[in-house]
Order: sequence, then C-alpha cells, then structure tokens
Amino acid sequence: MKNGSNEHEITEHLYCGRIVCIFMTPRGRVGVGYRVSSRSFPNRRAVLRGDGAEIVPIDPAEVEKNPYIAYRCLRMNDEVALASNGSHTDAIFERMTAGTPPRDAIALGLMAFDFEHDSLKTPRIVAAVSRNSKAGYLGIVRSDGLAVESFDLEPGRVHLVATYVLDRIGSPRQQAAFALEAAGEVVQGLFTSAPFAFFERPVCAAGAVARDHGFDAAVGQADR
Amino acid sequence: MKNGSNEHEITEHLYCGRIVCIFMTPRGRVGVGYRVSSRSFPNRRAVLRGDGAEIVPIDPAEVEKNPYIAYRCLRMNDEVALASNGSHTDAIFERMTAGTPPRDAIALGLMAFDFEHDSLKTPRIVAAVSRNSKAGYLGIVRSDGLAVESFDLEPGRVHLVATYVLDRIGSPRQQAAFALEAAGEVVQGLFTSAPFAFFERPVCAAGAVARDHGFDAAVGQADR
Amino acid sequence: MKNGSNEHEITEHLYCGRIVCIFMTPRGRVGVGYRVSSRSFPNRRAVLRGDGAEIVPIDPAEVEKNPYIAYRCLRMNDEVALASNGSHTDAIFERMTAGTPPRDAIALGLMAFDFEHDSLKTPRIVAAVSRNSKAGYLGIVRSDGLAVESFDLEPGRVHLVATYVLDRIGSPRQQAAFALEAAGEVVQGLFTSAPFAFFERPVCAAGAVARDHGFDAAVGQADR
Amino acid sequence: MKNGSNEHEITEHLYCGRIVCIFMTPRGRVGVGYRVSSRSFPNRRAVLRGDGAEIVPIDPAEVEKNPYIAYRCLRMNDEVALASNGSHTDAIFERMTAGTPPRDAIALGLMAFDFEHDSLKTPRIVAAVSRNSKAGYLGIVRSDGLAVESFDLEPGRVHLVATYVLDRIGSPRQQAAFALEAAGEVVQGLFTSAPFAFFERPVCAAGAVARDHGFDAAVGQADR
Repeated sequence: MKNGSNEHEITEHLYCGRIVCIFMTPRGRVGVGYRVSSRSFPNRRAVLRGDGAEIVPIDPAEVEKNPYIAYRCLRMNDEVALASNGSHTDAIFERMTAGTPPRDAIALGLMAFDFEHDSLKTPRIVAAVSRNSKAGYLGIVRSDGLAVESFDLEPGRVHLVATYVLDRIGSPRQQAAFALEAAGEVVQGLFTSAPFAFFERPVCAAGAVARDHGFDAAVGQADR
Repeated sequence: MKNGSNEHEITEHLYCGRIVCIFMTPRGRVGVGYRVSSRSFPNRRAVLRGDGAEIVPIDPAEVEKNPYIAYRCLRMNDEVALASNGSHTDAIFERMTAGTPPRDAIALGLMAFDFEHDSLKTPRIVAAVSRNSKAGYLGIVRSDGLAVESFDLEPGRVHLVATYVLDRIGSPRQQAAFALEAAGEVVQGLFTSAPFAFFERPVCAAGAVARDHGFDAAVGQADR
Repeated sequence: MKNGSNEHEITEHLYCGRIVCIFMTPRGRVGVGYRVSSRSFPNRRAVLRGDGAEIVPIDPAEVEKNPYIAYRCLRMNDEVALASNGSHTDAIFERMTAGTPPRDAIALGLMAFDFEHDSLKTPRIVAAVSRNSKAGYLGIVRSDGLAVESFDLEPGRVHLVATYVLDRIGSPRQQAAFALEAAGEVVQGLFTSAPFAFFERPVCAAGAVARDHGFDAAVGQADR
Repeated sequence: MKNGSNEHEITEHLYCGRIVCIFMTPRGRVGVGYRVSSRSFPNRRAVLRGDGAEIVPIDPAEVEKNPYIAYRCLRMNDEVALASNGSHTDAIFERMTAGTPPRDAIALGLMAFDFEHDSLKTPRIVAAVSRNSKAGYLGIVRSDGLAVESFDLEPGRVHLVATYVLDRIGSPRQQAAFALEAAGEVVQGLFTSAPFAFFERPVCAAGAVARDHGFDAAVGQADR
C-alpha cells in the first residue's frame, strides 16, 4: 500500500474493543501500543510495573466478576517489546525471549490460550516489535480463526488489530500514517490521533518506543 | 461479500502455484479441491489411492531432486475431507480425526511442518470441510505468517488460497461463484472454470465432494 | 507394578511442593486431587467456586509479591475433572472440552505456559481424569523436560506427580495404594494418608471424585 | 546414577525396534546414534546424503507397502546433530535451527506428527545433541504419552530410547557406559557393543560425533 492518500481511511466512529498496534516513528524507532476500550469494565487504569505495564481495575473487587479484566499488557527487554490484551502476554514474551521465532511463539501462545471463554468470546490479540530487525508482528485468535503476520515496518506507519470489527490482520483499513515520536506522545495519540480518535469508549493505554538501548514505556488514561 | 457482481473478480492470467479450495455446490454439498500448477516439476500426476489421492512424479527419479514433489494430497473419512500441498496432509487429518478442533489441528500442523525449506520457501496450504457442520477451513503458513480461517459455506461459492500471489486467506479476490456439482466435474473445473482457468501452468488436480455418506473423490490431468 | 508390597514405598518426610494426583477409589470412582505445600506462601486456602476450586492468599496483597500464588486449581464438567498448580488449568481444560485429546491438550498447554519463570523455576503440573474411559493423565513441564502420560486407573491406586523431588511421571515411588472414597475424605487424606502424610509443609487441598453424573468436589485446610 | 556397577544393566536379548541415543565419548565429544531393528522390513540400508543420512529400502517398491519405512534419519549443522526414526527429522531440526529451544522444538514436532498411524502404532523417537552446550535431548511420542528430557552428558555415557520395551526416557535400564570414539566406531558399536548387541534384528545404523567444527557422520549395515 502506498503511503499517500488512503481510500480505506477510517473516518467514522466505531467500537472495536481492545486494540494493539505496531509502528515505526517518523524518526525510525519501532514500538508497540495497547489501548483498552470497554463497555462492560470502563473503571480500569494502566500502571507501569517492573519491565512493563498492567491493566488493573480501580475497584479490585471487580476481578471477581470477570477474571479477564486484570493482566500484564506490556513486557519489554533490550530487544523486544510486546503488548497484548490478556494473560498470554507473559507466555508469548517468555517464548520469544527463549529464542522461539516470533511467528511461532505468538501462534503457539494464541492456540494454547484461545479466545476468552466467556459470553463474548473476545479474541486474544498481540503485538510485538524487534529493535534489531525493525520487524513487527500482529496476532489474533478468534473462535473462527487464528492469524499471525510479520511486517517490515516503515517510518511513519502504524498497523493495528482489534478485538472487534478491525479483527483481520493486514486489512487495508487497519493501517495508517503515524506522526508520533516519544512514548508519552504515543500513549496520548492512542486516544486523540487518527485513526484511534474514532474508536469509541476509550479507557486507558500503554505503549513502548525503542530508544538507543531497550525501550521507553508510558501509560495514560482517557479523559472522560 | 455479496454473491452478485464481484469487483474483485480475477480476469487476467497469473501464476499462483499450488491451490487448495473449499466450496459448496449449488445443491448444497461441501467439498475440497487441490490443483498443482508448477514451473519446476510439471511432469506429475494425481492418483487415487486408499482413502484419498497422491501427487506422484511420472519419473520416480525426480523425487531425488526435490523431496517436496510427491505426497498425499487428499484424505477423507465419513465426516471430513482434507486437501493439502504436502506431507502435512496426514498429520493434520489424523489430529482432526482424533477430535482436535479443525482450527487447532491445522494451526498445529502448519506450525510444526512450516513452509518448505528449499530455495523457494513455498508456503504450506491446507483446505478441509466437515460434512455435518457445513463448515470449511483454509490454512497457510508462509515464512512471514500463519493463518487459519473457518467459513460458513454457502451454495455456489468457493474460497481458495494458493502458494503464491493469492496467499491471503479471506481476501475478496480469493472467492468466487461455483457452479460445479459432481467430483469429476469439480476436478475438470479446477482447470477450465473461472477463476481457475486463469491460473497458469496447470498440471494435475484432485477433489472430493460430499455424498449422502462420506465423500466422492476424483483426480485429473491438465491438457497440455 | 503389583498391588502388593511396595519396595518403593515412601516412608520418610520430604518436601515436594505442590502435588497433583489421579486415582480410582476402591469402589471404582475416578478422581483428581491437588495439594499445596509451600515454604514461601503458606497463608493460602482453597475455596470452591463455580465448577471448580481456586487457591487464594488469605491476605490479598500477597498476590503483588508473586503472581503465581493465586489461580484456579480445579475444573470439572460432566465428563472430565482437571487439577493443576497454576493458571494453565483453564487453558488445558478448555482444550479438552473442545475435543482435543487429553495427551495433546496437556502437552500444548504445558509447552505454551512453561515452568514458572521466577527464581525457583517451579514446574507446572497437571492431573486429569475421564469419567467414561476410566483413564487418568499426569503432566509436568520442567526447565529440563516435558512429559504427559496416560494411565488405566485401577481400584485402590493413586498416581501422583509433584513440583519437586517426585517430579518424574511413572516413577515407582509416585504411586501407592488408595483407600479413600468420598471427595471430603480424599481431601483430608491429602494431608493425613500415606504417602501424602509424609509430604511436609501442607497448606490446603482440593479434590474431585466421580459420582453417577459429573463429579463431587471438596476443599480443605491443613491443621497447623 | 553412579558410573560404577549397574544393577539395571541389560544382559539378555530383547527386540526393541528402532533406537536413538545420545552420548559423550570418553574424550568428551557429543554425538547421536540411530539403529534400525526390524521384523517387517529388514531389507533396508542407511546412506549418507547431504548434511545427514537416510534410511532407504533396498527394493524401492517396498515404500508402496508402508510409507513409514523410508525417511531422513540424521541431520546436522555446525552446532546440532539430530537423529530420528521418521519424517519428523526435518521438521524438528528446522525448528531448532530457527532458534526454538530443543525441548519445545522436539515436543511440538512429536505432538504434530504423533506416533505412526498404522497397525503397530509405533512411537516416534528423536535424539539431539548440541556441540556448544554439551547437552543432549531424547524425545518420544507413544499413543499413551509424550516425553522430552534433556541430559547433561558425561564422558563415556550413553542414554537411549527405543520404540518398544525401552520406551521410557530416563529409565535406569536406558543408559550405559560408552567406550567408542569415532563416528565409524560408533556405528559399528550400535551393532556389537553392549547394550546394543543385545537388541535383536539389527538392520542398519547411522551416527554423528562432534569434531572441532561440526560433526562427522557414518552409516553401516548389520552382518546377517
């Protein structure tokens, strides 16, 4: 796809649930982003913890209602950053750290964890980037399919996949221009920049951007 | 996608290598098809054997040149028919027969066998249908991705995936109207009906169509 | 192995961490058991919840110290009961429920989750029984190996695997006579009957025993 | 286990089918071995080909009778040598070469290929060694289990697993002293040295031993 005009550009509001993305900043730094949009559990926040970030309910008792709403959403080491919408974050990150190629680590993790087995059958999604190879990876497991794709990232482009509607990796609607640079900007942009600004019910977000060594991470809350 | 006019219809010749497809005939019978198109090893044929079909070189010595050119391409039992472009046929069919859901059996098999590790890095592809559920499945593993998708089959529609060019499952270009009914017709149609007639370098083909119990199978050679 | 005298009988105290077991009661009912023994996090209890049981810290803040100490340890449906020492319970149970054969569901889950990636590298273990087939399954993944074995269960015998010391499935030391019948008795027996009475640092336990339809579950705390 | 007297030493003839082994020579070189013992298809030989070895029937028409009797049994690169009893050799070797840890590459391959689905349900077995880490790996998938174990190899010791009888990795009977050094000696020893000399119906064998860079390979035929 050309970087110019985009006939597939998203210009209307839609609710697509959780979203992961991979990108390269205009200056050539790779990164990942994750945003929670939620109708059922909006009272959550993203917090930096250890070598990553977690999604936690503001009222801890909410975990009793649904075990899927609290999880580590971001992991990083010197070489890899990975974002996901659930407890598969650690398993996939650990497989990649052990040497399993990203395509296989992601496919294995998604196959073993499967979509969320509650009434919504919410897909599991994952995004990862490699600092050295400048490659990015998106993955999704739905009740009716499983896909993992790698991308050669280009400066100023973002690729995303979401749990609802925008759930087909590689669809032309699921990529866009990307003008953000620093981790804090990226996280704000997950609420306010196109195409993310069109995605309804924003809650919180986390992101990581490569620096000279390792990654910078940031988290943020949507204005409500 | 609507069943009417198709803006994505293939109307020009292209070389897409091996092709698998899933379909429902106009009368509502599900089936699978497989066609070999080949530049490097055109001297091959499809033969019925046991509960399926095999691709074999006309000169057995050719197997010495490339271990990937001879394989079981079709397996069937009362409930399932499966077609593929390589030695993963048996492994995936056996997992499905043992009870593993099709999505997982296909993903596991493709992950373990991977693309063909010769100079072309040819993807592995697979197609399967279930007689009872009227569902079909397509899968592919490329060096840069892995995908498995299920489809609710509709009368008179075919979905395909190929090793080259048409290698993205679910792309609008990879489905079409389908007017064939019997297994023998289907196999001929894999050479002469749109969109298959546009695919260059046809060699041989195999297919299976559900009957009241189990499946009918057929094989055929391209005119050259 | 004969059911008579047992040269491999455990007659001395040892610390083997978490333990899962499969058994058939003297009257022919299959079941699973799980016991927490712990040096680092003894303040935990087992609670019945939904169609199974969970291990929870008495002080919820302890989860912050180690994410591995709270998890669903038991799941059951009409046909299958499964016990494990971690968050792999749901993933493996769901694969089995979907039709994947137990050997493969367990191996896939253990491979994807791996041992616990903290300083102890504690293995993940799992036990499952099928009411209809009277078969039992044990699985373990250690940093240096992965094993899944099925057993034809016999009345009055138990097979176990533990995270430490007794971590080789099929070892003669890891089976014993079993004289317990009801779920509540089984859970008490996981503290007081041989060989379990020799296992140090008991904390809490859960178990399930087949009844005419489905399974009975019970939980219990060690006297301290 | 101590290296001295061995109460578990094999001292009687038995038929255990195909055998793979890992060893360290007395001088500290790691290696793998593979021996075919066969009642049904004794007319086969091992041949060096490419970066490994193959098992081929002396009469090529025999492949028609059973697809499992011809396969690549040995693969090597600078760092890894791998031996197996079937078509899973390439898939597992390629996963290891791509970076997947040996335990996971072996478990995934064995799970996807499964035991041989003919009337004998012959297990698939695999042996691998790493030149740098001096570690060895054995794996087996039976209809009733799957196991992969790693071993820290010691000079003058061999560990083996076979398709029948000696099919439990880590059993004391499945290790022994090993006094062979060069690849050719090793292959002869797979027929004539204890414990291999006690294994009935020898047919052919292949093996690889680490040298300063890469591995030396050899093949041989049993005297009959």
